[in-house]
This record gives sequence, structure tokens and C-alpha cells, in this order.
Amino acid sequence: MRTRIGFVGLGIMGRGMAANLVKAGYELTVYNRTRAKAKELEALGARVSNTPADAAADADIVFTMLADPPAVKQAVLGTAGVIEGLKPGAILIDCSTVDPETSACVREAAEAKNALFLDAPVAGSKDAATKGELILMVGGDPETLERAKPVLDVISKKIIYAGPSGSGTMLKLCFNLVVSHMMAALSEALVLGTKAGLSPQTIIDTIMTGVIGSRFYEWKGSCILNRDFTTNFSLKLMHKDLSLIASAGYSLGTPLPVTAAVKELYAAAKGIGNPEEDFCAIVKALEQFAQVEVKRQ
Amino acid sequence: MRTRIGFVGLGIMGRGMAANLVKAGYELTVYNRTRAKAKELEALGARVSNTPADAAADADIVFTMLADPPAVKQAVLGTAGVIEGLKPGAILIDCSTVDPETSACVREAAEAKNALFLDAPVAGSKDAATKGELILMVGGDPETLERAKPVLDVISKKIIYAGPSGSGTMLKLCFNLVVSHMMAALSEALVLGTKAGLSPQTIIDTIMTGVIGSRFYEWKGSCILNRDFTTNFSLKLMHKDLSLIASAGYSLGTPLPVTAAVKELYAAAKGIGNPEEDFCAIVKALEQFAQVEVKRQ
Amino acid sequence: MRTRIGFVGLGIMGRGMAANLVKAGYELTVYNRTRAKAKELEALGARVSNTPADAAADADIVFTMLADPPAVKQAVLGTAGVIEGLKPGAILIDCSTVDPETSACVREAAEAKNALFLDAPVAGSKDAATKGELILMVGGDPETLERAKPVLDVISKKIIYAGPSGSGTMLKLCFNLVVSHMMAALSEALVLGTKAGLSPQTIIDTIMTGVIGSRFYEWKGSCILNRDFTTNFSLKLMHKDLSLIASAGYSLGTPLPVTAAVKELYAAAKGIGNPEEDFCAIVKALEQFAQVEVKRQ
Amino acid sequence: MRTRIGFVGLGIMGRGMAANLVKAGYELTVYNRTRAKAKELEALGARVSNTPADAAADADIVFTMLADPPAVKQAVLGTAGVIEGLKPGAILIDCSTVDPETSACVREAAEAKNALFLDAPVAGSKDAATKGELILMVGGDPETLERAKPVLDVISKKIIYAGPSGSGTMLKLCFNLVVSHMMAALSEALVLGTKAGLSPQTIIDTIMTGVIGSRFYEWKGSCILNRDFTTNFSLKLMHKDLSLIASAGYSLGTPLPVTAAVKELYAAAKGIGNPEEDFCAIVKALEQFAQVEVKRQ
Repeated sequence: MRTRIGFVGLGIMGRGMAANLVKAGYELTVYNRTRAKAKELEALGARVSNTPADAAADADIVFTMLADPPAVKQAVLGTAGVIEGLKPGAILIDCSTVDPETSACVREAAEAKNALFLDAPVAGSKDAATKGELILMVGGDPETLERAKPVLDVISKKIIYAGPSGSGTMLKLCFNLVVSHMMAALSEALVLGTKAGLSPQTIIDTIMTGVIGSRFYEWKGSCILNRDFTTNFSLKLMHKDLSLIASAGYSLGTPLPVTAAVKELYAAAKGIGNPEEDFCAIVKALEQFAQVEVKRQ
Repeated sequence: MRTRIGFVGLGIMGRGMAANLVKAGYELTVYNRTRAKAKELEALGARVSNTPADAAADADIVFTMLADPPAVKQAVLGTAGVIEGLKPGAILIDCSTVDPETSACVREAAEAKNALFLDAPVAGSKDAATKGELILMVGGDPETLERAKPVLDVISKKIIYAGPSGSGTMLKLCFNLVVSHMMAALSEALVLGTKAGLSPQTIIDTIMTGVIGSRFYEWKGSCILNRDFTTNFSLKLMHKDLSLIASAGYSLGTPLPVTAAVKELYAAAKGIGNPEEDFCAIVKALEQFAQVEVKRQ
Repeated sequence: MRTRIGFVGLGIMGRGMAANLVKAGYELTVYNRTRAKAKELEALGARVSNTPADAAADADIVFTMLADPPAVKQAVLGTAGVIEGLKPGAILIDCSTVDPETSACVREAAEAKNALFLDAPVAGSKDAATKGELILMVGGDPETLERAKPVLDVISKKIIYAGPSGSGTMLKLCFNLVVSHMMAALSEALVLGTKAGLSPQTIIDTIMTGVIGSRFYEWKGSCILNRDFTTNFSLKLMHKDLSLIASAGYSLGTPLPVTAAVKELYAAAKGIGNPEEDFCAIVKALEQFAQVEVKRQ
Repeated sequence: MRTRIGFVGLGIMGRGMAANLVKAGYELTVYNRTRAKAKELEALGARVSNTPADAAADADIVFTMLADPPAVKQAVLGTAGVIEGLKPGAILIDCSTVDPETSACVREAAEAKNALFLDAPVAGSKDAATKGELILMVGGDPETLERAKPVLDVISKKIIYAGPSGSGTMLKLCFNLVVSHMMAALSEALVLGTKAGLSPQTIIDTIMTGVIGSRFYEWKGSCILNRDFTTNFSLKLMHKDLSLIASAGYSLGTPLPVTAAVKELYAAAKGIGNPEEDFCAIVKALEQFAQVEVKRQ
């Protein structure tokens, strides 16, 4: 019998992931708050449900891919939420980026229904989601991961086992901490150099020559020079993640002085700019502060 | 007739650079405040001079490779400094990392002697200096650079032309801005993750899988996990560069809110640790704050 | 008939407040997790209860004075919590410093029992609590405040009406934001000046001469110079409040870049020092960074 | 014979100071780069000179009151500067806010002319300058201060002896550190509270009730609520002072993590606002970030 999968949350990332699952031949039931987004999946052969509970009913594996902790709590723990439908022995896999407390809450609720839980947030852009080339950071019981692996392989090119339940979430926060800092560093360097009369392309080229070079700088540097702020990952979501990281730092007694400054830069950029733009738009806040624009000369 | 070269400053980097020049067959005269360090070069065939002025006298090209702006000002503009000896038509090349104001001062002094000037700070470790594989960021007149190129090729694997005089200095500051942030990001991620129970090696591996991966993270991450803080570039010098960057930000009207936080983290690490250790030792300050140690498990 | 009062939380502040209520002739039932602390109140004539619910049963007014949001949630909303005992028409007054979300949760729970709610955090030290000279910042329905006023007058010298429910909590966070910054400012000024060879007493005197002078600087400056870090308000609690302020800033879309830096300074001070000491002990972290001690010369 | 005084720098503060000296009966020679500003003093009986050197010639005491270190260096050490005119035994008193290095430079130059030097920066607004009620923070030889005291008494209500040469400058930097932080604290509290729906007047009133209350909060709070950003002390000058403080922190090995964040807030406010407005205009930057305006309701 085919593995039946429920999928809740068809946003920028969820859509690509769900599409790959249905294309791989799984029997898929999807739920999205905005029903229109589910139509596309329906066309590919998925069933559309009316509630998260309905998407979870009868599923062997249920994925959730949502924006933030409140969205996860509502869709999973709320009325007609995933937990209500979850059957014993099923595996609930939360791919959202949340905080360890939320992961723990969801795990407890799943276990109370004799179901299993993995926290499995992803790294990778919309493009990687579409191609099934995400990187998964998984926390939970290794046997549960073993059982889910064939399905996870469909959406990812690499699965990193992070440790016990909650570790995937924590690893993702550490990863995004680094990403958010790198974007800030690139932005400050480009604005400072441009204000001093350097060619921003030369700055990017220089960064790329050394041991610090990475595809990230080339990619995001090129977006900034082309003034292309099309969203891969929004300012708003990065700011949300930084808020989760700051809370984790507080809970764990770990001062994060630089992250604190990075977080406030994203906050300011969100306030004076468009929160839905790509997170490389933090450069615009710095540009306003310095009264200069970074662009191809 | 062979090109005659003067070389002032035989520190961790200068020694390797000077050695490559003498090995390449140039007639080299060196000066170092601590004379003992000059002995090694003497053994390779260099002449040792008593003053910077003496090292510059008769030289076609004079290199300076010193710790900071005050050191450059003293050795170049001070009594018996390079400027006193510099002959008309000679090229003075400052490879030190300084601020644009210092570069401008030195250029003016060189021009007053009818000599030429290039600011040419380097990227690369001690190892790259020894192998002649530095990256040079050069500011100044393109014709002057053309003339100096055969000599610069001896010490570098790549020469980046940054623009008019002072641009090399400015590009180097932008480069080190990014380096200093990346070290801070890695350190905060490792300390936070370790405190949360993750394996620090897993954090590094995860960073390396994505578009943000770079040899820098692998290298410095491994140093931290091995508790190897042997100096490639010291805490003290990175803090000095951050101070130059902050000053440039002020002069240029460019707010750098994250760099400000990064600078204070290095300042604290320097204060509670050993300023001469490698700059990856900032992780130790964060470890003290969080009462945890990042190490191979 | 005498107004009956329940009082939950007999910490450093709660003890003084409860003592004043019983001395003023109210029929008081107290609850404290550590029962020993309730003995003192028993000696003054209070009844000691076994649970928060028990302290609330039959009370016309119930006070809670607890350390943080989790403590409030447990003692009020948890098993055998205040809400279980709260009778219709009673007024629940939370004097704890929490976040607006917690205040809203508690209000809803009280209203579900047809009871009334005021958030009424306090400003003032242990001394002010003992003398009944606290400042109360009250959020809620003005009529409810009117009813509670005779009782609140016993513990306070000034009642500030902040606005609708949750406003008292928010006003307290704004107040503590300022307090936490002033302590940081004083500490940085004292450490910088001392390192430069100034007399720290002269720095304090200078601050006191101008329009910026306040009793706070005189008081805390004197504590620091006398190396007296006896707790009036602990590092740990100030750090907790800064975390609540940061969360409120996030929720309200209000970047707070300086507060972020202040918060991390307290975090570091808590990590390398004693979290239970007075919050003026942040100066010790800066002293360690700068390798100097601020003391009377 | 009457004491002859030279006065260089007739800005917002210098004008009031010079006017008081001439009104007190001293024989005054003034110099200002923009000659128009000297006219007013001429009307009061001062002589107007063409150069700083000219203002200093024959003077027993020479005051300088300039914007920043470069301005002091030019007017004092430059061509036709004060030093050229300074006679042996005269006292040069620099009331500008500069860094300790500049104070040291000027002192050395004065001593080379067998003249004496005091660094004597002031605290107080334009109003205090006009009324002769400034606070002076004096560094230098106590006997020199003793000699200058009758003249200093004319412009000040209080003279604080800070210690050896340079100490006045350092004390002023510590003082302004505190002022700049308090303005930031007030601004963040007002913006956060306003965004949360509190009355900003209530926030100010609450601050004023406790031990943290000071005339500064009342004064600047009222300016903000009245949207009155008339310059008493400009954003630009406060940012300049913060840059001097940051440099002093670097030179002295004193990390100042909060000051670093405060400095960047002023930098951003200067960039997106009007650098000539009063420094309480930093609130406007925070208002833009949070999309709210703090005003009387």
C-alpha cells in the first residue's frame, strides 16, 4: 500500500516540497489557509482538505511548513489542527523554522496521540525546494528518521542528523544566525566602500578571491548590484528568525552581542522598507543612513 | 642594471615577502626596528640598514609593511624615515593596513620628493606571504602599478587594482570588515549551538553544505575545535583594523551598526584574553559569557 | 466587613507589601512557594495557605508579586492556581513585571471567572516596599482601580494610571528600559574615566552638577565606589526585564538598537559574574574587559 | 593694568562666553573664521582681529572654543594660528571638546613657546553660556588654574578640577557619554511606549517620579513632545563627541559596547535627518524605524 502523506502549509517553500512528493507517487492530501494556493497541487493529483486535521487523518506522515511559532501552534495544536487528526504511529514532521520551545510543545502533543515527531527545518531557497534539493536538519529519534528517510529523500539532497528532538530546530537557528550576519557584513562593506568611491563589483570580486569567498556573496552581491530584491527569503522572516535566536540565547544563558546588533538592523530595514522583500534589502537601510546607493557603475 | 629594493618592516608577513624578493634576484636592503629579525634576511643575501632612510636610499622601489598608522608615520615620515632617503622617481609601496588619511599623508610626502606612491595592502596569511601567494589590493596611478608589476608578481598570486591612491587601503578595510564579521558569526553560532547540546562539528558541517560555505569556516572552525589559537592574524591587529574601519565610517558618514558591535566583541576578547592570539580567540570571550566550551566531543 | 486580601509571592518586594497590608488591618491570606518565608507574615497575623487557589478563595482582592512570566502563569493559571480560587467580582492585581502577552492571558482568565484584573507593576526598591512608598503603574478599567485604590494606597506613595489593561505592564517596561540604560551609561563612563586616570568620584560629582544629575547616579555611583553590590534589584531580574522589552519591541515592530546592546551587556555580566548581585554589578564586566577597577582613590 | 584676553571661535557657545568677558571689563580681541559673527562682539567693545595669531598677540589669556579637533589644530597650530602669536607666560585655555591627543598636542605647542595651557571644556547649553553659568572641567597645573580663576569665574558657575593636563577633556567625554546615552534611552522608551499606545507624557511623568528623574528628561521630553528640535547641541556635534569617545576607548583599551550602539544610532539619525538639529532629534530616526510619531496626544 502506498504511503499516504498529509502536507500543511503551501507557501513559497511548501509548494515545491509538496509538488515533489506528489510527483514521486505518494498519495498526498494538502491543506493551506488560502485555498487558492492548493489548486496548483490539486492539478498535480493531490487531494485538498478543509482543515489541518483532515489533511492528517489517515496519513502515515504529516508535514508542516509554516511561517512562525504562532502559525505552527494554531495549525497543529489549535481547533481542527493536525493533532486532532493524527493517527497513532504516524510521523509528524515540522519543517518550519521555530524555536526549541515550540518544537517541544508539538512533540509532546504528538506523543500524547502515540504518534512520532521529527523537527526538520530546511536550508535552501525556493529553487532548491522546487528541485528537491533542500538540506534537512533533523532532530528526533534516529529510528523515526530511518522510517521517514525514503520520503525525506524526495525533497532533499542532504539530511543532517542534528541529535535528539529539538536539535534540528536549534541547528537551523545556528545556521540562519550565520546567514543573517553574512548578509549584514556584505551590506556594510558594500555601502562603506561605495561611499569611499570603490566599485562595489571590485569589493565582491575581492571577497571571492580569498578563503572567505562563497557562492552566497556572489549571488546576493549580484542581486544588490542589479537592484533585484525579489524575495527568496523575506526580511520579515529573517527578522523573525533573529528574534527566535535572541530568545534562545536568553533561555540558554548565551550572550549574542553581534546577533543583537544584526537583529536591530533587520528591524530597522523592515520598518523603513518593505518587509516582504528579500532579506538582502537590509542594504537599503544602510544606504539611506549613508545617503549613497550601491549599484553597478 | 638590477632593480634595487628597500624593505622596511620584517614582521610575521614582511619576512616572507622580503625573502621572496631576495630569492627572485633583486638587490635588497632591509630595515627592521628589532635588528635580530633582519639577520635571517641577511643570510639570504640582503643588506641590512640602520635606518628606514638608509634602506630607501638608492632604491628603485621601497616597500613598507608595518603594524599600524603610527608605525607607518614614524618609519616613513619620522626622523631618518623612508622619505628622507627616497630618491626622485622611486616608487614607495605601503603594504601595511592603515586608514585612508595615513595613505594620503604618505603619498603627499612621497610626491614632495618627486617619488611615486602605491597603497598595496595584502590579503592572505603568513603561509601565503611565504609562498608568494598574497592577494594585493592596489590604489594609485595605473602607470605606476604597471612599472611595479614585475616586482609585485614575485610576492602575490593576484593583484586587484582598486582605483586612485588610497583605494587599496579602503578595499582592504572593506575586506577585513567581512572577515571580522564572519569570525564573530561563526563564534556566536558555535557557542549557542554547543550550549544547546549540538555537536559543534555538525554546525560547521552544516554551514559547509550550503551556499554560505567557505574554506574560512572550515579552517577557523577546525582551529577552534582543536583549541588551536596559534596566531595567523592577531586579535590585536583585527581590533586595530576594526578601529580604522569605524573611523573611516565616521569620516565618510557611513553608519556601521553591526561593525560597531563586532569591534566591541574583539575589544572585550582582547581585554579578557591574550591580544596576541589568533583572532579566532574571540570565541573564548563568548565561551566565558556563556560558561561553556566549544570543543570536539 | 473587612476587605479580605490574598497575597501570592513573598519575595524581596512582596514581603514588605504584604506586611503593610496586614499592619493596615486587612484580613490577609498569603502563599509562597518556599513556605518558610510565609512564617514572618504569619507572625504579623496573616493566615498561611497551601496553594495560590487557597489564598484567593474568599478574597476580595488578590495580589500576585512574582519573578517572571512563567512564575505568574504557573501560580495564576496552573493547577491550584489563583484562578481556581478566584471568586466572581474579586479583583486580581498582578504587581509582577511581565510582558503584555502575559498580562493579557491573566486578564482573560480572570474575566472568564467574572473577576476583574489590574496590571500594577511597581517602581521602587526593597526599602520603598517596606515603607509603603512604592510607585504603582496601573493598567485596566478606571472603575476597578477606583475600587482598589484604598488598598493600593497602603503600599504606595503614588499611583500612575497608565491606560487600558496591559498599559501598566508596558509602562513599567519603558521605565526599566531607562533604568537599565542609565546604569550602563554610568558604568561605561566610570570605567573609561578611571582607565584614563580620572577620579571616579569626580565623574559622579560632575554628572550631579548638571541637568542630567539624579539621585540614581549618586546612589549607584556610591555603591560602585564602595564595592557594595548588595542586591536591591538583581542582574538576573534586570536581564529578564530587558528580554521582555526586546520581545515587546519585536511584537510591536519597534527597533531598539541601544537596548539590544544594553541587554547583551547584562547578559555578559550575568555570565561572568553573580546573577544574584545588584544590577550595578554590570560595572564588573566592563572592569574585566578593561582590566581596571573603579574604586574610591 | 587690565588683563588682556584673546578669544578664538564665536559659535553658538563662544559668542556668549566672549560677550560676558567684555562686559566684565576685560580688554578683548576676538577672531572668528566667519567675520560677520565678530561684529556683534565689536559692538560690545571688543577688537576684531584678522587671524588667530593676531587675537593672541599681547593677550595674557587666550581662549579657543571650536567645533572639533581639526578646527582646533588649524586655528591653534596652523599658519597664523594662536601659537604664532602666543607670548611667553600667557595662558592658552581650550574650551572646545576634543580628544586627549589633541589636548596634548596643543599643550606641547604652548609649552614650546613658554606659555601655559589648560584644557577646560564646558557643560551647559547656549543659555548657560549667555548667563555665564557654564560648568568648566579643567585639566592642567593647579597654579595655572589659580591664575586663570578670576577670568573663568566670569563665564562659569562652577569649576571642576579634573587633574593633570588632558583630564578636563577626558572628563568632558565621560560627561557627554552619559548625556548621549540618556537621550537614547529616553527616545527608545518614548517610541516603544507610544507604539504600545501609552501617552508619552505619562512615560515622562513616570520617569520623573522616581530616583532616576532629572531635569534633562523633563526638558528634552518636552522638546520632543512639542516637536521642537531647535538646536542647543547638534546631532552632528554629539556624533563627533561619540566618535572621540570611541577613539579614547580604543586607545585606552576600554570596550564600550553600549556607547558603540549609541554612536551608530546618532550616525543613522544624522544620515536620515538634519545633522544641524538638536541631538534630541535621534528620536526621529527611531520613529521612522517604528513608523510612529511621539507627540502630545
